[in-house]
Order: sequence, then structure tokens, then C-alpha cells
Amino acid sequence: MSEEHFVNPDVVKAVGDWGGYVEAKLGFRNHWYPVRFSKEIEEGQAITLQVLGEKLIFKRIDGKVFAMRDRCLHRGVPLSRKLDCYTKDTITCWYHGYTYRVQTGELVNILAVPDSRLIGRRKIQTFPVEEAKGVVFVFIGDVDEDNPAPPLAHDVPPGFLDDDVMILGKHREVASNWRLGAENGFDALHIFIHKDTTLRHHRVFNFPIGHTPLPGAVQTVEAPDGPKGVIDDFSLHKPVWEGEIDGEIVVRGARSGQVSGTSAAMQTSCWLPGVLKVDSFPAPSLTQFEWYVPIDADNHIYFQTIGKTTPTAEEKLSFANDFETIWKPHGLDGFNADDIWAREVTQPFYQDDTGWLDEMLCEPDVTILEWRRLASRCNRGIQLPEHLR
Amino acid sequence: MSEEHFVNPDVVKAVGDWGGYVEAKLGFRNHWYPVRFSKEIEEGQAITLQVLGEKLIFKRIDGKVFAMRDRCLHRGVPLSRKLDCYTKDTITCWYHGYTYRVQTGELVNILAVPDSRLIGRRKIQTFPVEEAKGVVFVFIGDVDEDNPAPPLAHDVPPGFLDDDVMILGKHREVASNWRLGAENGFDALHIFIHKDTTLRHHRVFNFPIGHTPLPGAVQTVEAPDGPKGVIDDFSLHKPVWEGEIDGEIVVRGARSGQVSGTSAAMQTSCWLPGVLKVDSFPAPSLTQFEWYVPIDADNHIYFQTIGKTTPTAEEKLSFANDFETIWKPHGLDGFNADDIWAREVTQPFYQDDTGWLDEMLCEPDVTILEWRRLASRCNRGIQLPEHLR
Amino acid sequence: MSEEHFVNPDVVKAVGDWGGYVEAKLGFRNHWYPVRFSKEIEEGQAITLQVLGEKLIFKRIDGKVFAMRDRCLHRGVPLSRKLDCYTKDTITCWYHGYTYRVQTGELVNILAVPDSRLIGRRKIQTFPVEEAKGVVFVFIGDVDEDNPAPPLAHDVPPGFLDDDVMILGKHREVASNWRLGAENGFDALHIFIHKDTTLRHHRVFNFPIGHTPLPGAVQTVEAPDGPKGVIDDFSLHKPVWEGEIDGEIVVRGARSGQVSGTSAAMQTSCWLPGVLKVDSFPAPSLTQFEWYVPIDADNHIYFQTIGKTTPTAEEKLSFANDFETIWKPHGLDGFNADDIWAREVTQPFYQDDTGWLDEMLCEPDVTILEWRRLASRCNRGIQLPEHLR
Repeated sequence: MSEEHFVNPDVVKAVGDWGGYVEAKLGFRNHWYPVRFSKEIEEGQAITLQVLGEKLIFKRIDGKVFAMRDRCLHRGVPLSRKLDCYTKDTITCWYHGYTYRVQTGELVNILAVPDSRLIGRRKIQTFPVEEAKGVVFVFIGDVDEDNPAPPLAHDVPPGFLDDDVMILGKHREVASNWRLGAENGFDALHIFIHKDTTLRHHRVFNFPIGHTPLPGAVQTVEAPDGPKGVIDDFSLHKPVWEGEIDGEIVVRGARSGQVSGTSAAMQTSCWLPGVLKVDSFPAPSLTQFEWYVPIDADNHIYFQTIGKTTPTAEEKLSFANDFETIWKPHGLDGFNADDIWAREVTQPFYQDDTGWLDEMLCEPDVTILEWRRLASRCNRGIQLPEHLR
Repeated sequence: MSEEHFVNPDVVKAVGDWGGYVEAKLGFRNHWYPVRFSKEIEEGQAITLQVLGEKLIFKRIDGKVFAMRDRCLHRGVPLSRKLDCYTKDTITCWYHGYTYRVQTGELVNILAVPDSRLIGRRKIQTFPVEEAKGVVFVFIGDVDEDNPAPPLAHDVPPGFLDDDVMILGKHREVASNWRLGAENGFDALHIFIHKDTTLRHHRVFNFPIGHTPLPGAVQTVEAPDGPKGVIDDFSLHKPVWEGEIDGEIVVRGARSGQVSGTSAAMQTSCWLPGVLKVDSFPAPSLTQFEWYVPIDADNHIYFQTIGKTTPTAEEKLSFANDFETIWKPHGLDGFNADDIWAREVTQPFYQDDTGWLDEMLCEPDVTILEWRRLASRCNRGIQLPEHLR
Repeated sequence: MSEEHFVNPDVVKAVGDWGGYVEAKLGFRNHWYPVRFSKEIEEGQAITLQVLGEKLIFKRIDGKVFAMRDRCLHRGVPLSRKLDCYTKDTITCWYHGYTYRVQTGELVNILAVPDSRLIGRRKIQTFPVEEAKGVVFVFIGDVDEDNPAPPLAHDVPPGFLDDDVMILGKHREVASNWRLGAENGFDALHIFIHKDTTLRHHRVFNFPIGHTPLPGAVQTVEAPDGPKGVIDDFSLHKPVWEGEIDGEIVVRGARSGQVSGTSAAMQTSCWLPGVLKVDSFPAPSLTQFEWYVPIDADNHIYFQTIGKTTPTAEEKLSFANDFETIWKPHGLDGFNADDIWAREVTQPFYQDDTGWLDEMLCEPDVTILEWRRLASRCNRGIQLPEHLR
């Protein structure tokens, strides 16, 4: 990956107050990102994956998950090509025996050169890991004793960590930059592509073909001790129920006499480092939380979850059953499938950065602009190719 | 596609009076290009294809074909990914309902934002289309009321549009830059690769292994009110009938006592924006017209046609029959198959522009140089990556 | 292939006294390289292959092999696309009949233009070829009457050309830069990856998990009238027999009471232009000679041979039998298979040149640094993209 002109500097300058967002092609550094569900990494198991351009090994040791860079310090080979774990908490490079402590990254031995002066004096980069709500989060950034990672609670939407909230979900890879995921999700207008969703059979709701924020609908949250995001309140939206061309009504939204509201959800909100919360969706008692986690400049992990307050074991069981039979197939798989191909076909326009200049936004897209500005203003750093060396 | 150094500027400068031809890697702008046969676009049908780097939608409405850019103004997505045509002459973007009048490109509505101020004030780019001789031509360039497209007759070889001329043909994609197509076709020497053509079984002709233009053979046509091209008259060529190596004859051309002439054709001519006319070929009463239409820098549409003067219905039927049974299989498919692979294996040498400097032309290649100069002198513009934004 | 910044100039400067080695991404120019075994090019046969970025045709004429560039001077097409050999020692381009004398490269005729002034005045580039020990070597460089190619003996390891030495082997393509091949082979530590070799069943030897050179082990050979290389004497190495992590022995080398020595081989040596000699390997009476011949920046021919002194016909037969049944399957195929994938997974780290800066070598890697310095100091030139024009 060329480091020079990784992002077109003319475009960064031209967009003004959201240049940082344009620069963040690889995502924002010094933030927490979900990567797998806890149950996907069993005791003693090691898995590899790529986040923000970093190739990582995750290993669970005595219950806790640790993450280190999957690249030997010596000759740069992937440790995972032939994973040698001679002890529970070390990984030894298959090539020359460089051996690292998983928890700290310390080079504890070189099996083929046991008296090397490098031993005990070098570290492979490690990354903080936390688990919450059955999800494994990794902090892609630089920490030390003086600069610990900020709390996970600052990087997830409000409510996600609440007591009694049960989280279920899935993840998959999407072939677009992560920002096209975030903007697709937060975009109030894109409801237009969901006209034929099978969710209709599982819930009574209003489904206009579009809706536009009225004054006051969009608010930012920037308190220093919590998550930073933009909230778009659908109760302050003006819905569009009919689409007309040349005086002829060509498409109608679905409007139910049984419920009020301008949309199928109550509100959406988009949070750093790139996570969407959709209130009362896919059904009134549920909340969808979904992350767009950069893999590299052209791909992201679409980490989809649904949360529900389930104080009792019976409610938990019931939610788990509904998730498997309704919300996963008709929501995360069915409804969101259209979002995925939409992001993928948007990718070529933005791939060389010129799309940020050439796009022609319309009035309701102010919510997206607000998100770009907040992200540029409140992020803790921009991930760059030089961070991967 | 990077806009910087799309073509090596040192090469453009070094070649002198045909630098414009070197620059025209994507073809010449403000010219007419054939793309499909009329019968391939039926009433109401929309097709997509790429010409000179432009991705286009062609749609036939009330008998007439129109062309517009296949990229929504809003977020740059291809409209064709899921074509929504709610009315006969509009295309609505599947993503947010941006709706365009096909004939004019006007943004007539945004279904999800019906009160947007953009409506009626923005246009997607459209391109003039004409049909002649059963072929759909598109004008890739900029036109307005003050600057209409020039007549199609200025961009096709003489004779193509004549009354009573019937045109039949086919098209296919070739993996080389369009200029290697034009030069392969216009090159009098390349007859060398057609030594074994099966056309021999369908016609008595002379087929030397090469022939060189004598003084006066090559003439340019540059009148302002007609097509611009270079004509190479084979009756003023010196044929080569035998190939000799170290005093030994190793290959012989085919010479018939029944006919005169230095070649199987009477003359060839190459015209802007990249179309060849071969007189008396593949048989004395026929004329081959073939276009090399840029798709992108590395591919072209090879649009092959044969014309014949057929005043009566009986003659039309007879030509149609001969075309299907003889001229298409033995001419356009068989004879020209060798031309196609020749262009494709020439491509790597010219791909980074250095081939234009490193080639070692011989004397008869003056006809090709004449074509390069005329094309540089008479074209109406050069298609550049910036035209695609 | 872009000529600008083919290698990162900052990296070349930063590495100091082995910058030339970093520059030699395409190998060293003006050296001899093995490409095929003699038996693979039969009388009259022509084969094509790529070496140091050069696409070449090799043809055997009256017993002697010649090599010329596989690209017609005229329009740059590969002659090999449809090889026309009308006489024993000429190759005629299929496109326009440019005809070259294979031995000299002289343009002896243009069949389609027999009176061209170019004839007899132009040459296609040819390259000296020599055969020794049943191997075809080509000299990639510039020679003329005043500057003939240096002797082959200066570019092969000592012993290879000795009388009574019989050479057998194989070759294959490996998807890494040639230098990662050379460094993998010369690296005394990489024995760590061969822990499970099946060679154990065919020979009694010591097999530590690593061994470190003591003072005096590494010597360079730079006499002007012979090959230039670095020798690493394993009798002056300190072996490592056990690998320990956190006080626990986790892996043990194989130590035999029957033989002495610190390794399975006696010594290794690495020679310009990129060839390794392993003494007493894969068995005491044998010597492995293996070349890493650049194909392009990302691939090399792994040319593997084993030599044995076989004065009698009986000994030759016996060696040939052992080669096929033991040394080829368990040595060249089995043992070296691990080396091949090791090189291939190392490639991404060095592909953009930054690996040369970012690697973290340990003490025994001084042998590799010595090789890089010798190669930078003693090579006869660096192959660059401009040599391929």
C-alpha cells in the first residue's frame, strides 16, 4: 500500500470542515471496534483477522482474549501461516523461533538463538481487548501506562451496555469502504430501497418512501465522558407517502391506520467510530446496533446486532427464539441485504476520493453532513498506512 | 483511473506532429461512434455499455434511441444496477428516487424528497444518438443549442450512407487499445498474416505477401464539410510475390491469371474517429466498413460491417443470404480472427506509451504515420479521464 | 512496469553499504544464469521463458543453443505467439515478416518489404549462452567484441564445474523475489523449519534447532579471477540443541552419537549472482547447488541441483538411481518444499522495499548482511526496467 497520497490532499482541503473524515479511509485510530462474538473464540483458540489494515491474532488464555499483530518482528512473516504455540500464552514463529508472550507482546525467547540480546528487549505490537454483551472489542491504537485506552462505553451507542440488555447478531464482510456503510445506514432517505421488505409480514408499521428532517430533528452528542454521535429524531420528520412523476402517482408508501409515526423506526443515531443505533427496530421493543468496521480501504466487517431488554430467563429464551426465526432471516439477512449491495455499487464512485467532491447531496442529507463533521471533530486519530509498518 | 499522467507527457512531446494521437488513449471526443445494431435495442428496452470510458444507458422511446450517463448525480451509483422505469421516458434511481427525463437528462423529481430545490435545476449528462443503415451511433461530446453535434456524415467513410447501400455486420470486444485495431486494419503489410485465409475458396483474387505504396498512393481527405481520412490506393502499390531468406524462396503469395490487381482489395482508407473502409472486399462488389470504438484504455468494440449496393428486394435477400453463409463466417469471423489476436498481443508493447517511441517502423508504414498525423490534426478533441467525472 | 521509483530511493539510501542489493529487485545484470537443463532443448527446438524481466527465445541450432529477445523490433509483438522458422537459423515475425538470424540477431530480411533499408542494419538483442554439466546458462547483459562475457566459471560456485562432478536436478517457479530465496537458503537459522524432514530416514546426521557462527566462521571470497561469495563454516558454529520457553524445554534437535558436527551440512556459501552451495548435503558425499533466478520482481526460478563426484560409469548410474529414488523426492521436493512456502509468505513484507528497513535481524544474521554487502560490492551491474526497453 503506497503511503504517498493515500488520500487525495486536494479533496481533503476542498471539503472544508469534514476533511478528517475524507482522510479516514482506513478508519479512526484509538477507538474500540467489535470483531467477533465471544463464543467464536474458545479457550485456547487462536483466530486471525484484519481490522483497519492491521492483521491480528486473537487468542483466549484463561478466559481472557488478547490481540497481537500477526507479523514476526524478524522477517515480517505471518505467524499464523503455521501457528506454533509451545506454551499456553506464547506464540513462536515457525521460521526462526522468535517467541512472543501473547499478553504483552514481549519477545521472551528466540529458540534458534537463545542468547540473543534482543530477547526481553523487543515487543511485538499488542492491542487492548474487552468483551461486553458477548462481543469481543479490540482497541486499535497506542496505549501505555500513562495513556490507557478510554472506556469501551465511550465508543458504543447509549443503551448497548445497559443491564438486562441482551445482544444477538451476526457479521459478514462487505466490499465497500466502511464510510459508505455508515452513510447508507444513517441516511433517512434510503428507506426507498426497502420498499419490498418482508419485515412487513412480521410487524405493523408505517413505511413512507422518504422522510425529511424538520428543524430540531438533528442533534449532536459530544459530552467528553461519553460516546460522540449524531441523533436524527424521526418524530420531527416530514414523511413522503406518494411518489409522483409527471403528475402521475407511481409509487406509494405503506401507511397503517393502526400505528402513528413517520417511519418504521423511532430514530437513528450514528456514533464514533462508525456504529449505528436504530431505535424501535426491527420491532418496537428492539434496538438494532450495527458497526461498519474497516478491514482495509475497500472492505468492512458489517457487524450487525439486535438488543432487547430481557430481565428474565424466559424473556431471554423468547428473544433468542424470535431472533433465529424472525429478526435474523427477515431483518439482518433480508432487510439489510439491499443495504449491502447498495454500498458495494457505491464504492467505485468514492474509491479515488473524487466522489466526495462530485456527489450532489440533497436537503435531507444534512444529517450525513452532520455526521461527517462530528466524526472529523471528535475522532481520536486517523488510521494511516504508516501505522501498519 | 488516475488523472495524473494518464499518458506519458514525454512520449507525447517526443513523437512530434502526432502527439495528439498518443494522447487519445481513450479516443477522440466530439465524434460519432457506432455501438449496436438498431435491432438490438427494441422499443422500451434499455441497455448499458461503455464507450470512451463513459458508462451509458441507451433506451428506445417511441422509436427513437436516447443515451444518458449510467451514474446517478446524487451518490454516483449505476442506475442500471436495478433499473426503475416508472414511466416510459424517465429513469428513477433505485437508491433515493432521483428521477431523470431520458431525452434531456433533466432531474424531474426526487421521489423521496419531492420538494427539493434541485428538481428541475440539475441535469445528468446525455449524449446525442442517431441511427443510420440499421446502426445506432452515439456522439461522445458536449453539445448545446449553440453547438450542436456535427452531421453523422462527417464521421463515417464516404459511401456508407449512400442510398441503396445495405449494411450487415456484427460486433465484439477486443482486448487492445482502439488504435492498435485501426493500425492493424490500415496496415498494408499485415496481409502477411492472412496467408491461409479460407476466403480463397470463395473468390478468385491476388494475394501477395506484401505490397508497398509507390509515390502518389497515399492521399489525405480533409475537406471541412465531410469525413477526414487517409486513402491508400493499392493500384499504386508494388506487390511482393515471393519471400526469400538466404537466397531461398520460403513463402509465395497467391497470384491468379484470371484477375489483375496488387491485392485482394482495391484500396483501404482510415477515417476519423477510427473507422476503416476496404474497397472491393471481401469480394469485388462489397465494401467492408469497420470501426474500432474505445471502451477504455485497454479494450475496444470491433464493429464490423459489410456494405453492398442492393437496389431491389431480391438483391437484398441474396446479400443477406450470402452474408450469413459466406462473408460472416469466412470474412468477419475467419479472416478477421487473425487480426484480433494480432492486436491483443501488440497491446503490452504500447500499454505504457513507450511503444510509440520504441517501435521500428519500415518504409510502407508511412501510411500509418499519415493516419496518425491526420488524426492528430483533424480530431475535434481528446477524451480524457476528467471528462468522466 | 513503471520505471520511476522502481525501487524506493529512500530505502536504498537508508541501508547504507548494501543499497545496491536493495536496488537489484530484478537481479544483477552482466551475469550468467541457469535456465533449463540441456535435455529440455532438443535440436531445432525453440522454447520461451522470462529471466530478469527479459522475455527470451532459446533455440538449439546444430547442437548449440542461442538466445534472443522474444519481441519483434517493428511493433513489439512476441515472435513466439506464432513461431515462423522458415530456415534452420532464422525466426520470422508472423506479423510482417521481419526475419532475424538467431545466432546474431541481425535483421536479414523483411519478407513483406524485401527492399527495406532496415535490412542488414538492425539487430534484435541476443544473449550469450553456454552449456555446462548439462545445464543451459544465459548471460543477461551487454557484450560486444571489445567486451565479451566473463567466463561462466566466475559465476558458479567452486566445484560445480569440476571434472567427474555429475549434476542432476530440477527447476520450478516460486512466487517471491529472488533475494528471499537466496536469504532463505543461506540463513543458518532457518534449519528451525526443517525439524520434521523425512531426510532423517535416509541418513544419520545431527540436526540442531539452530546454530550461531563464532568468530572466523564467515569469510568472503573476492578474488578477481573467480566467483565472488560468502562462506559460512558450520564447524565454527555453536549449535543449539534444545529450545526453552519459561524454563520448560519445548523442542529438541536431533543429536546422533554416531557422527560429529554441528549440522546436517558442513558449510554453506552464497555466490553471485544468486546461487547457494551446501557442502555435504543432502548427504556427506553430495553437494547441493541451487540458483534463485529472477523472473520478474515477484517471482524466481528455483533451479535446484545436486552434484556428486562420479569417476566411473557405474558410479554415475548409481547416483542417477539414488537421485530419482531418494534425493529428489526427500531433498529437492520434500525438504525444500518448506523453504518455498517460507519465501512466498515473506514476499509481502519486502514487496514495497520497506521490509529492508523494518526487519529486525538477530546476531547470526550477520551472514546474511555479509552476503548483501558482498553482492552490492562485487556485482557487475543492476538490472533495471530501462534495460527491458
